[in-house]
Amino acid sequence: MNPIDKLAALFEKFPGIGPRQAGRFVQYLLKQNQSYRTALADSIKKLGAETAQCRQCFRWFAVEHQGSSLMNVCRICADARRDASMLFVVEKDADIENAEQSGYKGLYFILGGTIPLASEEPQKFIRMAELLSRSKKSGLAEIILGLSATAEGDHTRLMLQEKLRDSGIKISSLGRGLSTGSELEYADPDTIKQALGNRH
Amino acid sequence: MNPIDKLAALFEKFPGIGPRQAGRFVQYLLKQNQSYRTALADSIKKLGAETAQCRQCFRWFAVEHQGSSLMNVCRICADARRDASMLFVVEKDADIENAEQSGYKGLYFILGGTIPLASEEPQKFIRMAELLSRSKKSGLAEIILGLSATAEGDHTRLMLQEKLRDSGIKISSLGRGLSTGSELEYADPDTIKQALGNRH
Amino acid sequence: MNPIDKLAALFEKFPGIGPRQAGRFVQYLLKQNQSYRTALADSIKKLGAETAQCRQCFRWFAVEHQGSSLMNVCRICADARRDASMLFVVEKDADIENAEQSGYKGLYFILGGTIPLASEEPQKFIRMAELLSRSKKSGLAEIILGLSATAEGDHTRLMLQEKLRDSGIKISSLGRGLSTGSELEYADPDTIKQALGNRH
Amino acid sequence: MNPIDKLAALFEKFPGIGPRQAGRFVQYLLKQNQSYRTALADSIKKLGAETAQCRQCFRWFAVEHQGSSLMNVCRICADARRDASMLFVVEKDADIENAEQSGYKGLYFILGGTIPLASEEPQKFIRMAELLSRSKKSGLAEIILGLSATAEGDHTRLMLQEKLRDSGIKISSLGRGLSTGSELEYADPDTIKQALGNRH
Repeated sequence: MNPIDKLAALFEKFPGIGPRQAGRFVQYLLKQNQSYRTALADSIKKLGAETAQCRQCFRWFAVEHQGSSLMNVCRICADARRDASMLFVVEKDADIENAEQSGYKGLYFILGGTIPLASEEPQKFIRMAELLSRSKKSGLAEIILGLSATAEGDHTRLMLQEKLRDSGIKISSLGRGLSTGSELEYADPDTIKQALGNRH
Repeated sequence: MNPIDKLAALFEKFPGIGPRQAGRFVQYLLKQNQSYRTALADSIKKLGAETAQCRQCFRWFAVEHQGSSLMNVCRICADARRDASMLFVVEKDADIENAEQSGYKGLYFILGGTIPLASEEPQKFIRMAELLSRSKKSGLAEIILGLSATAEGDHTRLMLQEKLRDSGIKISSLGRGLSTGSELEYADPDTIKQALGNRH
Repeated sequence: MNPIDKLAALFEKFPGIGPRQAGRFVQYLLKQNQSYRTALADSIKKLGAETAQCRQCFRWFAVEHQGSSLMNVCRICADARRDASMLFVVEKDADIENAEQSGYKGLYFILGGTIPLASEEPQKFIRMAELLSRSKKSGLAEIILGLSATAEGDHTRLMLQEKLRDSGIKISSLGRGLSTGSELEYADPDTIKQALGNRH
Repeated sequence: MNPIDKLAALFEKFPGIGPRQAGRFVQYLLKQNQSYRTALADSIKKLGAETAQCRQCFRWFAVEHQGSSLMNVCRICADARRDASMLFVVEKDADIENAEQSGYKGLYFILGGTIPLASEEPQKFIRMAELLSRSKKSGLAEIILGLSATAEGDHTRLMLQEKLRDSGIKISSLGRGLSTGSELEYADPDTIKQALGNRH
């Protein structure tokens, strides 16, 4: 394959990118100068060396040098001002950004996904052993399961509730109901059922 | 105006209908036979005589003859099997359909809208006096405020909570949080904040 | 069926209207006063008596009284300033509005549709006999086939070209190519092929 | 800026990519292994060295070695089977793909854009001098101006027609009219005007 088509094929693997947009990316890069392309290439190549997966919450973070030693936990996990008694279990790194903007001040745990409904090997899809191990560390008062309000999310939530039942920690789930901005007329019956059940 | 354009202008007032679709409606009617058009016209003309607004919940319903007397309350309000201790306050008739599908078994009250944020005459926009009057009837244990999760809905909810505070009835609001089918990554921070606040 | 659901069912037959919007139309009508509903009903009921299908172009028009006699052709067909040597064959009444805005000054003929690809009885779907008869009237110099740029439109165009071949009238088709506002990058290959073929 | 945010900022400059999708690209890359990231980085870094801009049509192409010498024209320009008497002037590289699928067999010239309506220095936006120079080479019988059917495209076309008027070469433009798949009812009046003007 020629270098133009080869690079387009690599971009086509990016999430949400089809062949037309992949081709446009390559055209865009062809029109940039070499120093830009080199900067982008270096950023991609060094990404692995300059980032690490947090040993505590499993999200990816930029490594920084503190004196002679490397950090091995992320900024949030290392922040003594966060409420270490609360653990917000979310599916992926991107979920943290919205949660941070909501004003949440506890810690996080990246589950890595959800369990497909018919799966016989749930541990393949999520960090179940890691979460159980994390739940045994001292200081946790509550684990909030922040899973998608979908069939797979519910399935995963139920499985985690069962696994964590004997942990002695309060296991809670995100409230379900009307999302901000929504109207009753356009809400589906299940959302109204949840909103009625969670009325306050 | 000629009858084709005149009818199109009447259809253009229908909710959500622009000039192009209004014109298409007229073309559709021109191609139907006269008996169809007469049936539609009669249905529209008799709508007022064959319907009534429920004296209790204010929704529109089809009047039926029971012996010599007309019903003046709707089927739901007249149904002795419904839980008459619960009153679900909704904005408009269309909200009832989804609520019924959610499995709710109490009664309803159609508020008629929401109060604009800057309004000095809130009673112009909603049935506030009628709701206060309804709250004084015996047998009500809980009023559920089923308002839109919008700024106007919140404004209306707060005003109703204040007005109903001394009624001796429990005043509740629909739960806010993740709507069915939604994912954390695409939820807005306020919805996550509500979902965290309503965790259970 | 009760009158509310019955009227919603009639609106649901309107082109492009689903059950939710049909219900909203009825709610809208319930909130109007009786005089509005009567006006709408009368407009619909009288539509048949106040309109006629033009005997020449077959479009629907509002009948007007001229002295003692009714018009039986539409305003465009009756307009002596129009160029009676040109006949623009279009599929439906709604096509005329755009054509008029384009500045076209000849006459029209409403074909009534297109012929499905596999049809064995094409005369069932379009006014073929009426068009042939129209083509035999004196004064016509050109028939412009204004059919959709689709497979069915092309099929119908080819069939009409064959039928009209021996009429002695010039039979033309609308130009194909880039539509106003379009860019080459987003044009499909067939449109580019047509645009190259029709270059000038 | 940390390497994760820095790479996201670089992706955000890609055409059509907002901050959310840029972040998703980085998350995608974090989850790939280092060999994949290295392959992508190398593809980007070597893009400049492995491609060249065709000296004849100005599109980007993958350089190949032929004996001891590098090619300096692209495959299409070098292909003796193409019709060298026809030159299709298009705005950008991406336009060629659709044109090739349309069955066009002549040569191309990448103009590099269109001229803004109010521009006083048109030569800044398009390869006007290069096109004039190209038009003077022997063998050209026709130049097809394949510009967007927009105000800027028309402006550019008129300016090029004027500049090329004395070249002795036939200057043509792409046909305008109904694009494949379109219906008269949804066509804008200008498209119908063009389609009537280009009827055949």
